[in-house]
Amino acid sequence: MTSNPDSAPWVPIAAQKQRDRASRIPQKWQIPSSTLPKDPPTISDGPQNVLNVPRQFLTHSEIEITEAYTVESLLAAISSKRLSSVDVAEAFSHRAAIAQQLTNCLTEPLFESALSRAKFLDGYLEKNGTTFGPFHGLPISVKDTFNIKGVDTSIGLAYLCNKPATSNAPLVDLLLSLGCVIIAKTNIPQTLASLDSVNNIFGRTMNPINRLCTAGGSSGGEAVLVAMKGSLVGIATDIGGSIRVPAMCNGLYGFKPSNNRIPYGGQALTNAEGTSRTSVQAVAGPIARSVRDIDVFMSEVIPRATAWGEDCMPCPWSLSPPSTQIKGSGPNGELVIGILRSDGNCTLLPPITRILNEVSVSLSESSSRQFIVNELLTPYAWTKSQSVMSKLMGVEGGQLMSKMITDFKEPIVPWMQTRFRTGKAQTLERVAELQAQRSALEREMLSLWSKVDEFGRQQQVLDAIICPLAPHPVPPIEGYNAVGMTSSFVLFDYPTATVPVRNVVEDDLELGRPLAAGNVLSSWDEKCRELWNEHVTDRRVYLGTPLSVQVVTQRGRDEWLCRVMGVVDEVLKSQIERVKAKL
Amino acid sequence: MTSNPDSAPWVPIAAQKQRDRASRIPQKWQIPSSTLPKDPPTISDGPQNVLNVPRQFLTHSEIEITEAYTVESLLAAISSKRLSSVDVAEAFSHRAAIAQQLTNCLTEPLFESALSRAKFLDGYLEKNGTTFGPFHGLPISVKDTFNIKGVDTSIGLAYLCNKPATSNAPLVDLLLSLGCVIIAKTNIPQTLASLDSVNNIFGRTMNPINRLCTAGGSSGGEAVLVAMKGSLVGIATDIGGSIRVPAMCNGLYGFKPSNNRIPYGGQALTNAEGTSRTSVQAVAGPIARSVRDIDVFMSEVIPRATAWGEDCMPCPWSLSPPSTQIKGSGPNGELVIGILRSDGNCTLLPPITRILNEVSVSLSESSSRQFIVNELLTPYAWTKSQSVMSKLMGVEGGQLMSKMITDFKEPIVPWMQTRFRTGKAQTLERVAELQAQRSALEREMLSLWSKVDEFGRQQQVLDAIICPLAPHPVPPIEGYNAVGMTSSFVLFDYPTATVPVRNVVEDDLELGRPLAAGNVLSSWDEKCRELWNEHVTDRRVYLGTPLSVQVVTQRGRDEWLCRVMGVVDEVLKSQIERVKAKL
Repeated sequence: MTSNPDSAPWVPIAAQKQRDRASRIPQKWQIPSSTLPKDPPTISDGPQNVLNVPRQFLTHSEIEITEAYTVESLLAAISSKRLSSVDVAEAFSHRAAIAQQLTNCLTEPLFESALSRAKFLDGYLEKNGTTFGPFHGLPISVKDTFNIKGVDTSIGLAYLCNKPATSNAPLVDLLLSLGCVIIAKTNIPQTLASLDSVNNIFGRTMNPINRLCTAGGSSGGEAVLVAMKGSLVGIATDIGGSIRVPAMCNGLYGFKPSNNRIPYGGQALTNAEGTSRTSVQAVAGPIARSVRDIDVFMSEVIPRATAWGEDCMPCPWSLSPPSTQIKGSGPNGELVIGILRSDGNCTLLPPITRILNEVSVSLSESSSRQFIVNELLTPYAWTKSQSVMSKLMGVEGGQLMSKMITDFKEPIVPWMQTRFRTGKAQTLERVAELQAQRSALEREMLSLWSKVDEFGRQQQVLDAIICPLAPHPVPPIEGYNAVGMTSSFVLFDYPTATVPVRNVVEDDLELGRPLAAGNVLSSWDEKCRELWNEHVTDRRVYLGTPLSVQVVTQRGRDEWLCRVMGVVDEVLKSQIERVKAKL
Repeated sequence: MTSNPDSAPWVPIAAQKQRDRASRIPQKWQIPSSTLPKDPPTISDGPQNVLNVPRQFLTHSEIEITEAYTVESLLAAISSKRLSSVDVAEAFSHRAAIAQQLTNCLTEPLFESALSRAKFLDGYLEKNGTTFGPFHGLPISVKDTFNIKGVDTSIGLAYLCNKPATSNAPLVDLLLSLGCVIIAKTNIPQTLASLDSVNNIFGRTMNPINRLCTAGGSSGGEAVLVAMKGSLVGIATDIGGSIRVPAMCNGLYGFKPSNNRIPYGGQALTNAEGTSRTSVQAVAGPIARSVRDIDVFMSEVIPRATAWGEDCMPCPWSLSPPSTQIKGSGPNGELVIGILRSDGNCTLLPPITRILNEVSVSLSESSSRQFIVNELLTPYAWTKSQSVMSKLMGVEGGQLMSKMITDFKEPIVPWMQTRFRTGKAQTLERVAELQAQRSALEREMLSLWSKVDEFGRQQQVLDAIICPLAPHPVPPIEGYNAVGMTSSFVLFDYPTATVPVRNVVEDDLELGRPLAAGNVLSSWDEKCRELWNEHVTDRRVYLGTPLSVQVVTQRGRDEWLCRVMGVVDEVLKSQIERVKAKL
């Protein structure tokens, strides 16, 4: 990773941090090196899935605790004392410890404090006869960016190591007030701005479904830990796609809320404080195993957010009713879904087109509930948004990040080498101009959702959009390309989520053989095509990786997004295999 | 007003605009010059209240239509065909025409288009048997800043005259889609940044309760027209206090929502487009005669806002239940009210302290429903907010406004002469720094609302704040002083509203005679004291002017604010005279 001499100041800090981390994994939880996957992975060995490796080392009870429960059923088991918080914290910690050895997903294991917290919770329940809060004993993990008192928030930078936080992030305080148990903090990419979770201090997090492919980023460690079942809910953040992309890479559900929904403060600063209030704001949100887990998580966090985060707005949230009771805007209550395909900057690779077709047909043909599925024309605003977003994300010029990296002579990680740029901050006039462009794009997007009658009265005509997360499937390590399809919805402040649909199978690899030439739309498009070009990429790398879609609703309709996700997910689960066989 | 020669380019434009405006008042609605108040007004004539002058010139039916109805009862009368939309539009237009002659509150009379719109609505109801929308026939007025297709949005600047808007502001479209009838656009101050509504094109709007006192600004014309009953609901905007201050000056209810509640776009630009997204955002909101009218207005506008404004977030709004059903955070459902007094920048003048005492006692002693009233210590954040807000409002340097004024050689209006400054725009770094300061202040304010238990769990301990709108009563023309008590709640994005309590009476003038010296807190404080210093100000100027309080709730809790306002208003209406007599 580095051409720097070993004497660069970051090197001993990284070594010490890695030793510290290793020392926080109890010896009894260390797994034999013979069970570790081959490093580096090679494609000739086929997909290298480590998801089930932990089972070899867990007790039957630990397997059951970490695999058999939803958030709701686990909380019920704890509150009814069928499980103790300690049992749960230990099982998840053990599994997280193994996940760390297999995927390098953690930055700060917190097994000891998790256990002591669990003991407190068990005692509280015993003494008071009631749970501490609605998430009494829930095992969660948080992205390394969040401050936890007494723990480093290093975000993989030597500059920030050995400076333990002096207080908790508001979201951490909120989650603790509900009764959560924090198992670990998880790995991220250097600069937080790349789609592979690799940095000089902690190294690279590997995708447990297929070590040949990227784990995604920037919340890569979070998604991997949840996929490995070392945590039930992962707390992540997103500005370009950092919740949704790792969720996609790891076959999980990732929910990027609207801004002002979940407290964002108390995180590592990657640029001058206050900059995001002038430009564009990242958001925090959950990564989980099911829509219902996300729903339950949000139903307790969202209504309390304003008490903890000065950046939050009040928002009611009730758990989704049965899907048949969810009415859409169609004339008979059908859910009206618009399918967006290319954003105009990249041509979709064949498996992405196929999965959209399958989703479209699955919904259209669903007998369990009615949909109206419309193909949408690509709005100019969606095409243009990637460039406006990219400029707004860069207004500050990266001075602080650059200083943090160069002060310790850290090398830039590979993916960022051609992408990390520093410069002078933009002028206020320029930033205002970009914000004005943003408003114009938002206005154009608005017209997708409703139509105006002859007298100027509006009617809703669209309930949600389904679109790709990327023009390509989960790519090989370092292969992630344009983020316009995810970053645009932060620009627009639309809540959006990742819904995994099915995995890539052999016959997907036959699609577009040879790949049609077509017009190259952009430099991103050119790079993207390489991912399906047999002369450049061995398509077998995609086998077994998840194909997902992005579900999008209007700004602030987060609760509605969760409902639509639930309905869509339910239909896809029952229909996709039949439809796939047919198409 | 001007030392410029009459040949300055703005002069003929102003003259033409005033002729145009006069020509849009039908001859039959012109009132004899003998009935016009003396100009300039003098204090020796005592309070010069013109509120009831229009009655002399209106038919019995017109008086009833403009005075006897609430929003709800007027809509009911129209939809049941007891009144026609044309009857209503004519009555309000007639009264607005008289109001204009008495107070100079209009910029663009729209009586003709209002009438034609009303005819359309009557026809629609006749033909379809149903109303056009929930506000079928509701007579409203809008601040001059809002674009109405075919009408100037001049905001009193020659530079912007004779450039009719090419489309409606989103909020105008929204209101039209509900069935509103727009009677007129109303007057504002030059630059929109002063608290007296005076400009070179349209002149000064006068306070109809007492022409010696300011009508307030920047939505001065709006408040005056509503007070004169020439409109039932006024659409205004607020960043420093521009809804709440004129509401206070005219004895009305003014509601400043949180940001993202009501579409703000499509207004005259006073600085570079997009600037507010980097700094601080003004908001639109209603001025009306009662809490219930505001409630009804918001209940239809808020749930539709996201369809029209790309800047809006979804928000449910249902009409307030009876006040006895509104539960607060007290142990027995009491509403917990915190009283904030001085913001630390100005000492409250005696009538303001008295009205807060009366309000506090009225609520504490209310038998109709229970309150817990707590005196709050002034948070440092409230003291500091005025300066941060003032800096954030000025980040752009006023270049565009300066150009618009100087291009037509307009003189600066008196109040702005020492206050209007232009300069270079701030750097992005500086703006980010101010935003970071803002976040810190917001965090401090957050701690007012809830307390944390020994285990870190939060509990709401405050439902609303009552505080002054200004340290002084409605001041003489040009006498408005610090706006920190109103502008701070835009910085914090708290919804706040003006609730009028009672008018100044003779014995209020005896308070603080002589005025206690005390420490001068600031230059604002020094100026403020002059308003109650008998050597500088004849206190009789305040007789008959309204004393109001500001009701404030947490960010985004706009519906809740309306409920609290309703409960507080109900109690004050029944208690204030008794309590005043007692204290």
